Amino acid sequence: MRQRLTCLTLGVTDLDESKRFYVDGLGWQPTLDVPGEVVFFQIAPGQLLALFGKDDLEADSDGTTLADPSTAPLSLGYNVDSEAEVIETMAHAEKAGATIVKPAQRADFGGFHGYFADPSGFRWEVVHAAGFQVAEDGTVSMGAEP
Amino acid sequence: MRQRLTCLTLGVTDLDESKRFYVDGLGWQPTLDVPGEVVFFQIAPGQLLALFGKDDLEADSDGTTLADPSTAPLSLGYNVDSEAEVIETMAHAEKAGATIVKPAQRADFGGFHGYFADPSGFRWEVVHAAGFQVAEDGTVSMGAEP
Repeated sequence: MRQRLTCLTLGVTDLDESKRFYVDGLGWQPTLDVPGEVVFFQIAPGQLLALFGKDDLEADSDGTTLADPSTAPLSLGYNVDSEAEVIETMAHAEKAGATIVKPAQRADFGGFHGYFADPSGFRWEVVHAAGFQVAEDGTVSMGAEP
Repeated sequence: MRQRLTCLTLGVTDLDESKRFYVDGLGWQPTLDVPGEVVFFQIAPGQLLALFGKDDLEADSDGTTLADPSTAPLSLGYNVDSEAEVIETMAHAEKAGATIVKPAQRADFGGFHGYFADPSGFRWEVVHAAGFQVAEDGTVSMGAEP
């Protein structure tokens, strides 16, 4: 099994509300939008993010009741190039309808970050980590924080 | 806020056990491994997957208790090129220590898929969807299923 992820599916509580946030709020462009069923966005080369109803995801898997997205044990990381960009991005997300979970601040690891939640409650971390670098071919390196 | 995800962090229940699955079981190569703290793998151009303790993730965010990963409302999609490759990949994952959640079978949307859970319980969907196509530049398109 190769080291890759091709589609991250989020089981959302209200598909229309989630779509409004990502499309109308953030300005994202769907690769495919099947109203009332699923919306796909490209979020990396070769990779999609899918918004899919949580109940539909449960039915598609083995029927296990899944947790509310506000307690999903993950974060969706959005690395930016400066502390100022963390602050700007958090403000932009809040204006688009996000809930601020942790205001922009110094992070324990030495960088600078904040967390916001999308309308379902999925948490994004907006982060400036100087060690996170992407080469022209897409290779990511992680150096030590200064 | 641009349409991208740079680091998907999974809050795992046992970091060492998770690391063993992805590194020793699946053969993935870490970009950075900080023993007892965090492991990063590159899973797309410009993007990392981080394994981080669920309690550490809670502390890094706002302290909210997060759900057990076995009920995380998401799936980690792994698109492959054929039905045979779905079956092979599921078998490979099971041998590496995964739990089969839904055996490989015809999917409601017309493709072919199965689900397995990693040692924390995070669900991967191994899927063949003929409509999912990646161009040479990484652009993904989603056509109709035949």
